[in-house]
Amino acid sequence: MPTTRTDAERLDAEDVLAGFRERFALPPGLIYLDGNSLGPLPTSVAPAVHETIHRQWREDLVRSWVDWMELPTRVGDRIGALLGVGPGQVAVGDSTSVQLFNTLIGAARLRPGRQVLLTDPRHFPTDRYMAESAARLLGLRVVEVPAGEAAGWLARNGRDVAVAAYPVVDYRTGELWDIAGITAAAHDAGAVVLWDVCHGVGVLPLELARHDVDLAVGCTYKYLSGGPGSPAFVYAAERHHQALDLPLAGWLGHVTPFATGGPYLPAAGIARAVVGTPAILSLVALDAALDVYRDVAVEQLRDKSLSLTAFFIRCVDELPDEPAFEVVTPRAAERRGGHVSLRHEHAYGMIRALMPQGVVADSRPPDLLRFGFHPLYVSHQDVRESVERLWRVAETKQYTDPRFARTSAYG
Amino acid sequence: MPTTRTDAERLDAEDVLAGFRERFALPPGLIYLDGNSLGPLPTSVAPAVHETIHRQWREDLVRSWVDWMELPTRVGDRIGALLGVGPGQVAVGDSTSVQLFNTLIGAARLRPGRQVLLTDPRHFPTDRYMAESAARLLGLRVVEVPAGEAAGWLARNGRDVAVAAYPVVDYRTGELWDIAGITAAAHDAGAVVLWDVCHGVGVLPLELARHDVDLAVGCTYKYLSGGPGSPAFVYAAERHHQALDLPLAGWLGHVTPFATGGPYLPAAGIARAVVGTPAILSLVALDAALDVYRDVAVEQLRDKSLSLTAFFIRCVDELPDEPAFEVVTPRAAERRGGHVSLRHEHAYGMIRALMPQGVVADSRPPDLLRFGFHPLYVSHQDVRESVERLWRVAETKQYTDPRFARTSAYG
Repeated sequence: MPTTRTDAERLDAEDVLAGFRERFALPPGLIYLDGNSLGPLPTSVAPAVHETIHRQWREDLVRSWVDWMELPTRVGDRIGALLGVGPGQVAVGDSTSVQLFNTLIGAARLRPGRQVLLTDPRHFPTDRYMAESAARLLGLRVVEVPAGEAAGWLARNGRDVAVAAYPVVDYRTGELWDIAGITAAAHDAGAVVLWDVCHGVGVLPLELARHDVDLAVGCTYKYLSGGPGSPAFVYAAERHHQALDLPLAGWLGHVTPFATGGPYLPAAGIARAVVGTPAILSLVALDAALDVYRDVAVEQLRDKSLSLTAFFIRCVDELPDEPAFEVVTPRAAERRGGHVSLRHEHAYGMIRALMPQGVVADSRPPDLLRFGFHPLYVSHQDVRESVERLWRVAETKQYTDPRFARTSAYG
Repeated sequence: MPTTRTDAERLDAEDVLAGFRERFALPPGLIYLDGNSLGPLPTSVAPAVHETIHRQWREDLVRSWVDWMELPTRVGDRIGALLGVGPGQVAVGDSTSVQLFNTLIGAARLRPGRQVLLTDPRHFPTDRYMAESAARLLGLRVVEVPAGEAAGWLARNGRDVAVAAYPVVDYRTGELWDIAGITAAAHDAGAVVLWDVCHGVGVLPLELARHDVDLAVGCTYKYLSGGPGSPAFVYAAERHHQALDLPLAGWLGHVTPFATGGPYLPAAGIARAVVGTPAILSLVALDAALDVYRDVAVEQLRDKSLSLTAFFIRCVDELPDEPAFEVVTPRAAERRGGHVSLRHEHAYGMIRALMPQGVVADSRPPDLLRFGFHPLYVSHQDVRESVERLWRVAETKQYTDPRFARTSAYG
């Protein structure tokens, strides 16, 4: 690679976010490019969980619920800041899958009489499954139109669309879709939008309020580093709160959680999107993890992220012609999310072979290598080093080692 | 009270479970009679959570998913042992509210064409709300018949009932309902049963397999002491697995979780009831908490539980006539769950006034005092002492102290 270590060192020296790496308890020597799957442990998490277990649970017991009850909306507000929305519009809890189901039905009920639930044929599987399930219960029809064609399709055929449900970033290719354009087209057609922000929150300025987004759902264990299976969140713009009619009518979303009789009466505001008793240990870990975002602007995250992904693409471009990696992710900055995907027929074996080389990334079948670059703990030197090690794995065909063959559906 | 300390000491000396109290990190001197709301911290939890954070998450990162993926069904099997069912029929995850919704719809779809969802008008609020929500989506009708009349009603009017959804124990009165009788009546009518076992699991021999129960949902933060908001579980009898058609069609319930295309195809067995990414920290805490049940038979739990609740009722009976407490919970052992409720118009203030006296219990509006007796950490001396302190609070009218007035909806 003509791109030298000096180039990487210079970029890192200019990096205003370089010191943030200390906020994470990364294993020494590891280049971690899989934070878009499971973020690493922030140093703030273990003390917070310890406090919750040993003081709140052990000593204060049920009295701690006075504090815990507020967590879903209090942590929601912290995430809202990263989404570019004001307070009182984000609730945290449940898994992304459950949030998607609940919000899809709530969204469709905002547009009664319309028959179409529009989504992306290449959307993440759980998004597609939940769209089918919601449509079946409501008697709607799922229509699949790729995100790149959605705005145009909505302009031509959108009259019967209740909800347009799209990912902000394609989880395979890393392509960033046109949030403003699809949202505007949906609104022009009279539909509401539901954005899945899983692969955008914490790395991109999503600006949901500025784009007039209706609803969004996202997870917190990727860039937000909330821990394995940390709870998901839902954003609903304030203008929809009063009409938001969610099927998961749990006791904590009731206007009077400790009411003992009568029908379900949803709470005012986003509190109606809180469902059942939240998983407090996981929620406390997430709350603490969000401390890594203190004193950093979303624009700084985006600048560093683009610098890292551009540098990665530049390094890959300078590799010898064989073995050839196709850069799948758009080269235009405005169309690039937080990760970069490369295509190679031996994607799976290469990613496995990179692990003993101290580089963790992941693969997606059939032939994609995915590299996630978190602006708070990945450096340009990490980027250069990972490409060099990838090239070594490829050149020496280490991926053919039987140790790196596929052994499990979860591998 | 004629019942002397010596009586209590003798009962405790004969208690084969007395040593199990050491498995809990109870605050010194506290008499904790609220384990039917939030179980106390088991000593096994903190080391397990520490290991998950510092080794699995911090060091092994995404590789830990190979282990974590198995947790919902592995922990499910441990809970299944307490439900009296064989392995492979219980999945852990999500909140009780979410599990109720998912299972109610799955249950109704086992009996297509039937129009009635039968439930208890005094069921816990979230159970009633979810029944209404499920019925609305499916076009069914909710019919409310008290648990005590359900078997007779089913025999007379059950032909159109799809699902009978009841609590095993009334959360207010502590009455244990007739699991065998209601289940048999539902089956005779051609319906399936869904039992809410929240107030029974971990303290009663539920024997769901012997009673031929179809489906059950329960929480794990009460008697099971899994921690605040620890995940709920669902039991589905093996005979229903293939037909079980759940609306929460999440990626982890798919036959191939990492499939990237095609429709939702549910996994074989109970794995189809796993929905989205589980909240691992909360799930690991629950797994460790279940260690408190090692080397104890469910029958031993029940024997000790009945001994504690009978002794409590005996102590209350021996109190002076004024102030009068009405024992709301049935006196017949076979109709008594794990907690005992007393009626008094100053219930709320009395429970608040008991706290500084070192006794934690809870109240339910308008006039119930609830005392939960966990057989693994409550002694007969605790029971006697709590009644004595309650009597002191009542006799001296401490509950009229403004410090103990209602100040919050969560109080």
